[in-house]
Amino acid sequence: MKQHIKVGMLGIGNIGRGTYTALEMNHQQILETTGLDIEIVKILNRHPDKDRGIDLPKEKYTTDINDILDDPEIDIVVELMGGIEPATAYMASALEKGKSVVTANKAAIAANGKRLVELAQENHVLLRFEAAVAGGIPILTSLTTALLSNEFSEVHGILNGTTNYILSQMTEYGKDYAEMLRTAQEKGFAESDPTADVEGHDSANKLSILMSIIFGTEIPPEMIPTRGITTIAREDIDYGFESGYRIKLLASAKKSKKGIYTNVEPVLIPASHPLASVYNEFNAVFVKGNAVDSLMFYGRGAGSLPTGSAVLGDVIGIARKLAKGAAYDVVPQIRYDSGLRFIGEGISKYYVRMTVTDKPGVLGRITTTFGQFGVSVEAVKQNAPYESDGERIASLFFRIFEVERPLLYYVLNKLHKENIILSVDNIMRIED
Amino acid sequence: MKQHIKVGMLGIGNIGRGTYTALEMNHQQILETTGLDIEIVKILNRHPDKDRGIDLPKEKYTTDINDILDDPEIDIVVELMGGIEPATAYMASALEKGKSVVTANKAAIAANGKRLVELAQENHVLLRFEAAVAGGIPILTSLTTALLSNEFSEVHGILNGTTNYILSQMTEYGKDYAEMLRTAQEKGFAESDPTADVEGHDSANKLSILMSIIFGTEIPPEMIPTRGITTIAREDIDYGFESGYRIKLLASAKKSKKGIYTNVEPVLIPASHPLASVYNEFNAVFVKGNAVDSLMFYGRGAGSLPTGSAVLGDVIGIARKLAKGAAYDVVPQIRYDSGLRFIGEGISKYYVRMTVTDKPGVLGRITTTFGQFGVSVEAVKQNAPYESDGERIASLFFRIFEVERPLLYYVLNKLHKENIILSVDNIMRIED
Repeated sequence: MKQHIKVGMLGIGNIGRGTYTALEMNHQQILETTGLDIEIVKILNRHPDKDRGIDLPKEKYTTDINDILDDPEIDIVVELMGGIEPATAYMASALEKGKSVVTANKAAIAANGKRLVELAQENHVLLRFEAAVAGGIPILTSLTTALLSNEFSEVHGILNGTTNYILSQMTEYGKDYAEMLRTAQEKGFAESDPTADVEGHDSANKLSILMSIIFGTEIPPEMIPTRGITTIAREDIDYGFESGYRIKLLASAKKSKKGIYTNVEPVLIPASHPLASVYNEFNAVFVKGNAVDSLMFYGRGAGSLPTGSAVLGDVIGIARKLAKGAAYDVVPQIRYDSGLRFIGEGISKYYVRMTVTDKPGVLGRITTTFGQFGVSVEAVKQNAPYESDGERIASLFFRIFEVERPLLYYVLNKLHKENIILSVDNIMRIED
Repeated sequence: MKQHIKVGMLGIGNIGRGTYTALEMNHQQILETTGLDIEIVKILNRHPDKDRGIDLPKEKYTTDINDILDDPEIDIVVELMGGIEPATAYMASALEKGKSVVTANKAAIAANGKRLVELAQENHVLLRFEAAVAGGIPILTSLTTALLSNEFSEVHGILNGTTNYILSQMTEYGKDYAEMLRTAQEKGFAESDPTADVEGHDSANKLSILMSIIFGTEIPPEMIPTRGITTIAREDIDYGFESGYRIKLLASAKKSKKGIYTNVEPVLIPASHPLASVYNEFNAVFVKGNAVDSLMFYGRGAGSLPTGSAVLGDVIGIARKLAKGAAYDVVPQIRYDSGLRFIGEGISKYYVRMTVTDKPGVLGRITTTFGQFGVSVEAVKQNAPYESDGERIASLFFRIFEVERPLLYYVLNKLHKENIILSVDNIMRIED
């Protein structure tokens, strides 16, 4: 019965500081509630001269990873360096040396989760990564404990705070994408290179992990069709708002008998759906189970302390097992053996914004062509025409009934090639 | 290492059927994921001739509680009878006989939780009651595992589906309370005697349990100031809607150094708050922790299968420990020893609707009296006057800045006694 649990931490960046601070704030309460005295005894700090903005005992720092991996007193290694390597190598080594591992590293788990899970199994230790998906929100813990009595059919996540902040502000203030990105960067909500966020890759990493837990699949992020928010214009936001929708960058996956439909893309969601009220830097995960039905988890998906809270939750979970001297779970927290494969994006309703020359018969030609290919129109709206390069042009907004995405693209492409429409400006899925 | 876990179930009503059905639906998946073969082997059915609307092997039924309590093969007793007694006596007996207990019984846990928790401790078995608060939402599991690294400062719950359904429909269709209650009864969302729901007692039971877990307090439901939704009129809903608020029956508790402020009452919540988008029969729990910050859990707070999902989640949690032959947690899931006591309802902003005679100077006399007692007005609105009993009368709507509730009541009472106002029609808290 081990009550004093020693932790080695790799990295002392944003999340590392949050984890250390959260433990300092709540050490006494954790001790009283669980009987566990958890201590971060060593910290890998590859740049010891850099000001970390936190005052902690210098003797805890080391620049040598082996000071942590080879310390027999350390029970749990917390990896908070980020990036796929050397983080994966360090975690693998810790597992092989019989230490349990906690990580917040979505990229490393999305890339190497299966291998690391197997290593943990082989070495009879635990691997946890609650903080890797949706920051402080306890979604992975819930799915793998209280919700085990469900088979899940779908998951939809707002998994990236930066893009949700930009979209929320565009909606609230009627500003353009480029302007809101600059504001987000000034406020520290967006990186100076925002590509991973705004192009949806960060969300795809997290969705890959969520799918593996919910569906037992091994669908790497590179396989998930991923579209970002950079093409969204004020007109799209305005049209959505007026029609009772909100636009969110949604990471979605649905299970069918044949396999998994999945993608990451901006989606029009009805304003009354709980995901529509997730604003600014907040995240949310919506799931549907065959017993529990609809559930949504909402909270901070990033940030020093909220992410630290999730890291510490995992540390406490493992420490409780160590304290009881209990055998580890015979089955891992995550499995990759359902055999379900990625089978496409499925059929959906779509929103299409296009530019046309404002002359009689254009709308008729478009809808006739749609009709020929079985593409049905739910609603159409035209904005007031305006002059451009001596031509009168107008924007058309369509809502299209359920259709396969490739067919829709084919028909739009055909309309464009036949010069019936000048340009297709945006295409987004509609979730009803 | 016990892999075949036998469960005895007390009661085969709505939740009993949901639990049985959810296990039938997902038995294979639970087996594959956890290695556990969970079986409900006996069911206490006090009215064996009643049609239960479910087809299950008759030999599982018994009318004798001792068939379950004295069966050495049964590891877990699931209590789904409802009501404080005999449920509490049966649970106590099961714990004393070394069986772990799972219950969905909020009334019994709110009334006798402390005694039952102590009994479980003494007998080295487990007591779990996820389903007792907010149905299928895994709030208790999350608070006692992934979120243990937090000190929580407040909790706000929409914990009753019946009242939330009525308020949502009043808002959507502009209908009166009485009419919407009838609709809810017809649709099966409200009982024929709706008192426990509409007067807030059901929510108070659940809040008492939530507070014990979040704050380690022992504040019985009878001590929580509780106001229902029966006095809410269309005018209140309309005023809230126009002013950017939604009205929800909120079960709230906040911690201060001195103790706990708590109550259950209808509250005006800003439309942009995530709790404002919880519609119809759905429930939600919003908490604030010192590391994780704001979190909200949303889902079905009642219903056969969603509640069954929570019951089964607890059963699986206990079964996993049994399967590992692990020593039970040395500390209970719930504690009552923080010493924090109920200290009142705290100060808040308030909404007040009143009726006055429509003559010059009335508003001035009201605001002057408010001012004398330090009650500050944030906003005031008057509806068009109308004739009643030969007098021209009007409704006034006030938003009042932070004030102690007793002071506000005192001043309103004084205004009424001095015949400055004809009646105070409604008072509700505003959460900003």
